[in-house]
Amino acid sequence: MAVFSNAKNYRMAADVPLLIPEVNADHAAAIVQQRRLRNWSGCIITNANCSATPLVMALKPLQDTFGVRKVMVTTLQAISGAGYPGLSAYDMLDNAIPYISGEEEKVESETLKMLGNWDEGHGFTAASMVVSAHCNRVATREGHLECASIELGREADPEEIIAAWENYQSEPQQLKLPSAPEHGLLYSREPDRPQPLRDRDTGRGMTVTIGRLRRCPILHYKFALLGHNTIRGAAGGSILNAELCVSKGLV
Amino acid sequence: MAVFSNAKNYRMAADVPLLIPEVNADHAAAIVQQRRLRNWSGCIITNANCSATPLVMALKPLQDTFGVRKVMVTTLQAISGAGYPGLSAYDMLDNAIPYISGEEEKVESETLKMLGNWDEGHGFTAASMVVSAHCNRVATREGHLECASIELGREADPEEIIAAWENYQSEPQQLKLPSAPEHGLLYSREPDRPQPLRDRDTGRGMTVTIGRLRRCPILHYKFALLGHNTIRGAAGGSILNAELCVSKGLV
Amino acid sequence: MAVFSNAKNYRMAADVPLLIPEVNADHAAAIVQQRRLRNWSGCIITNANCSATPLVMALKPLQDTFGVRKVMVTTLQAISGAGYPGLSAYDMLDNAIPYISGEEEKVESETLKMLGNWDEGHGFTAASMVVSAHCNRVATREGHLECASIELGREADPEEIIAAWENYQSEPQQLKLPSAPEHGLLYSREPDRPQPLRDRDTGRGMTVTIGRLRRCPILHYKFALLGHNTIRGAAGGSILNAELCVSKGLV
Amino acid sequence: MAVFSNAKNYRMAADVPLLIPEVNADHAAAIVQQRRLRNWSGCIITNANCSATPLVMALKPLQDTFGVRKVMVTTLQAISGAGYPGLSAYDMLDNAIPYISGEEEKVESETLKMLGNWDEGHGFTAASMVVSAHCNRVATREGHLECASIELGREADPEEIIAAWENYQSEPQQLKLPSAPEHGLLYSREPDRPQPLRDRDTGRGMTVTIGRLRRCPILHYKFALLGHNTIRGAAGGSILNAELCVSKGLV
Repeated sequence: MAVFSNAKNYRMAADVPLLIPEVNADHAAAIVQQRRLRNWSGCIITNANCSATPLVMALKPLQDTFGVRKVMVTTLQAISGAGYPGLSAYDMLDNAIPYISGEEEKVESETLKMLGNWDEGHGFTAASMVVSAHCNRVATREGHLECASIELGREADPEEIIAAWENYQSEPQQLKLPSAPEHGLLYSREPDRPQPLRDRDTGRGMTVTIGRLRRCPILHYKFALLGHNTIRGAAGGSILNAELCVSKGLV
Repeated sequence: MAVFSNAKNYRMAADVPLLIPEVNADHAAAIVQQRRLRNWSGCIITNANCSATPLVMALKPLQDTFGVRKVMVTTLQAISGAGYPGLSAYDMLDNAIPYISGEEEKVESETLKMLGNWDEGHGFTAASMVVSAHCNRVATREGHLECASIELGREADPEEIIAAWENYQSEPQQLKLPSAPEHGLLYSREPDRPQPLRDRDTGRGMTVTIGRLRRCPILHYKFALLGHNTIRGAAGGSILNAELCVSKGLV
Repeated sequence: MAVFSNAKNYRMAADVPLLIPEVNADHAAAIVQQRRLRNWSGCIITNANCSATPLVMALKPLQDTFGVRKVMVTTLQAISGAGYPGLSAYDMLDNAIPYISGEEEKVESETLKMLGNWDEGHGFTAASMVVSAHCNRVATREGHLECASIELGREADPEEIIAAWENYQSEPQQLKLPSAPEHGLLYSREPDRPQPLRDRDTGRGMTVTIGRLRRCPILHYKFALLGHNTIRGAAGGSILNAELCVSKGLV
Repeated sequence: MAVFSNAKNYRMAADVPLLIPEVNADHAAAIVQQRRLRNWSGCIITNANCSATPLVMALKPLQDTFGVRKVMVTTLQAISGAGYPGLSAYDMLDNAIPYISGEEEKVESETLKMLGNWDEGHGFTAASMVVSAHCNRVATREGHLECASIELGREADPEEIIAAWENYQSEPQQLKLPSAPEHGLLYSREPDRPQPLRDRDTGRGMTVTIGRLRRCPILHYKFALLGHNTIRGAAGGSILNAELCVSKGLV
């Protein structure tokens, strides 16, 4: 039995892939070693925290093209991320809460594992970057909006960065996995996007929308990004992971 | 006639104070020169953008005690900041918008003027720090919540920082100005504060509440802060400015 | 040219059909007379106010089976009914407004025209019932929820009433019009439905959902009903009207 | 010990007052009999459901002046009425729910007890009117808005009705009880009031605001009313009850 889990429990285990098919499809191979080490016939493959997922998808093309050294991210997360019944209406109506238990730690650690390497000899190696997160809950139903500032590995023009996002090629689209959106990433040139209400359902909730790229006076660039937390950031992500593993003959 | 303006127009003018009595009461003296240069009998004194105001109030004790080199801030701003009728309900219900026209520029520039110096010979000198802002609109009625990461001028323990906030003495309280809150700043040790709904009315809307101080993996520290945008960040601020100028015999 | 209008202007005109294909498809024939009287080659056909539409759809099977004498209805209407930009977020967040200009009058008059008769000799005759409406705006995006109390023309058991709704046959479904939902009406036996969020998209926004049928101590019965105001109650209704007229060879 | 309870448990008991000082202050005397029958030294006095309370306050002057035969009421109730944590934010954001467990029954029965009589010989006699309620939950924090249609005992002009509300005299104001608002009732002539956001805090949450009186085509009149559910409809009501009983020497 192959378990595709959206729970936090095994995500950081040394032999368990934390998988986003558009980002680190090669990590899936770790389950061969996992089976051997645990003497399992089945396996477990996890997907990441709902805030880390779209961030990692937005960072991956930049990491590949320019390198990424520092990521400062502030999230505006939807109430559905807390499950059901989750947050009290009395806490959320006309309010925002600057705290989600354990969330900042997950974003800071899971991002490094997903953007890191896996090989059979060394297992998982974390990416050599630093991530700092501020996590907030806001009164939206679905869709985590995130404001990121980044320092790249080298200088780059805005159009190079946008091109890196727009030209990024990834396995789910090449393999035509059933749940894969046409575009894993979309860059919007509208001045006020992405917005949870208007962009969360892009690609049936599987596309991450990026916008507002501009210079950051402290790190190199700032931008906003958005992912659907209960589709791409939860069940939809698990299903895409399963489709990838089936397609690669791993399960 | 003395004009105490909350509009953006004169804020950055070379002879116009951008005043928060708890922060830069000495800037008020610039109106003497302003009158002479403009050949006015009256004067104009401005108060800052509603997002810059509470940020500056939170930074001032840190600047005085440790120095501040870098400030990365992401705002979650209330709908009342847009005036009336302001935002359409159809744009805001179940949504957040990562853009407010001109707002990031104001936060980045006004902060430096307010935390800078004024003297009669040189006029206003901007503070030597860098500020980077991401400004968002969220579905709250009043109270701008802000997530800040800062680099200080020297190393400091968390308790030193909290002490700097808690022990900060400022003129409006010493002068017992009628609109001055008992505390210009309050630090909350609750894990999930400040929140717009629960903290905006502290000090009749004139107190800035700070919370969640913790280490930042990229800059030195992270924290959250909150100010009432239509009281401290608007009319209440103008009135306190007027009270200060009257008290000092400047108008 | 045939004009299918969602505007209020011609709705109550003596020669203009106010058409819901599930309810009064025979009224469409009035355009033959309209063309002659106005010496037009084209014609105008209107659809009703977004609150009147789902109410009329829920009443029609009861009128056919039992007669309907009195209808007391209180609406909880979505913000999209006010158009864009429509209502200010500052008026709607944490609020409800017991007034919508002209709305109660429209519900009270349009309902009678739609449930009345048309024949070539007499034109439109209003249904002989009385309608009283209280119209409210609430903080929902889409979907008008309505609480109705009715007096029927004769005694009836609850199951007879539900059967009247469930067995109602109407032309759009029989003609398989492209925009017709599989069911014009659905009765939900859940205790807390219909709800705007969960029921508005039923039948791609073209189905009216009814629930909570129970005895009324004053009139005979009470129930709740819900229709999607910007689909069934606006553009979707106009399109279905056009499909009906084309299908009948009237345009 | 005197218990002033806001819980539903004893409200309908034959020897327990269901008390609103502005409405049925004389019912408080029932505790003398209650003590004797139960052989208690203490007593229990209840206040009503948070929806029934403002309705009864609005009806009382009409009952005294014209008689009231029928009351059809639809409520739009705030989330705080469900307690804490109460409703899930995921159920309420962009939604309205046409059901609150047990609420309609309470409004229909408690209203009759409060508007009825008490005398030592017969105990409580229910008012001879009929009440029918539709209860809804909407996304407001505080303040229950209610739409009522009523049949009076005799014909009356609108101005007579408004005068009945405006001239109503009641004991808490005459006794100058500490928690009594200056006006138990206020009639607003604005076309779109009362609104939860703007009227709930009138009289420090103890005043009921009425508005939009107009003819009802089915019963005689329609109007809207609003009361603060967690002040007048809960703790504030209990305290006023206690103040009344102390003032009358009953406890």
